[in-house]
Amino acid sequence: MAEGQGQGVVKHILLAKFKEGISDHQIEEYAKQYANLVNLVPSMKAFAWGKDVSIENMNQGFTHVFESSFESTQGIAEYVAHPDHVDFANLLLPKLEKVLVVDYKPTSVLV
Amino acid sequence: MAEGQGQGVVKHILLAKFKEGISDHQIEEYAKQYANLVNLVPSMKAFAWGKDVSIENMNQGFTHVFESSFESTQGIAEYVAHPDHVDFANLLLPKLEKVLVVDYKPTSVLV
Repeated sequence: MAEGQGQGVVKHILLAKFKEGISDHQIEEYAKQYANLVNLVPSMKAFAWGKDVSIENMNQGFTHVFESSFESTQGIAEYVAHPDHVDFANLLLPKLEKVLVVDYKPTSVLV
Repeated sequence: MAEGQGQGVVKHILLAKFKEGISDHQIEEYAKQYANLVNLVPSMKAFAWGKDVSIENMNQGFTHVFESSFESTQGIAEYVAHPDHVDFANLLLPKLEKVLVVDYKPTSVLV
C-alpha cells in the first residue's frame, strides 16, 4: 500500500518548550529516553528530534520538535497506552512549560 | 553528508487551524497551491500534508499539518523571501485562525 494512504505511515509530532533551568544536556538525555521507546513499544517505528531553528517568529515559544513514526493510527493508540510510554510521559511532561501534539498521515499532492 | 547533520535536511512544519466556513475542498485547493511551491521555489525539495488525527487532546485546536523539506536553513531563508512564497502566504494566512511554524533538522539518536 502506498505511503500516506490507508495504513501508511502516521507521524506523531510533539512540540515542546522546556521549563527554565532544564539544560541542553538534560534535554539530550530526555531525547535519548524518548528514542529508546522505539526499542520498547512495538508499534513505534522511528524517532528523530531537533531544536527549533525557525526565523519567522511564528513558533509561539516552542523550542524543540520530537517526531515519531507509526504504521497506523491504531499503532499510535497502542503507543499512548503502552506502560513504557506512560512512564516516559510522566517523566517528561512535568519538565515542559508548553506542549502540543499532532498526528497526521503525510500525503503528497501531484501538481 | 549524513541526513540531520550540518547541511542535512531541514523540516519546515506549519500547523494550521482554518477559520470557520473554510471547506475541506478549499483546504485541498490551498494544499495544492502550497505543494506547487516545490515547482516555483528552488530551495524547497518536498511537501506533504495531512489532517490532524491525534487522540490525546493536546493539539491546541490545530487541525492540519503542512510539512516541507529543505537542504539547509539558508534554503528556508530563501523560501521565506521568495515572491511566490510571499504571494501564497498572503493568500493563506488570512484564512487561518491559528498558525504555528517550527523548523528543525531531524536528528536520530543511537540508543
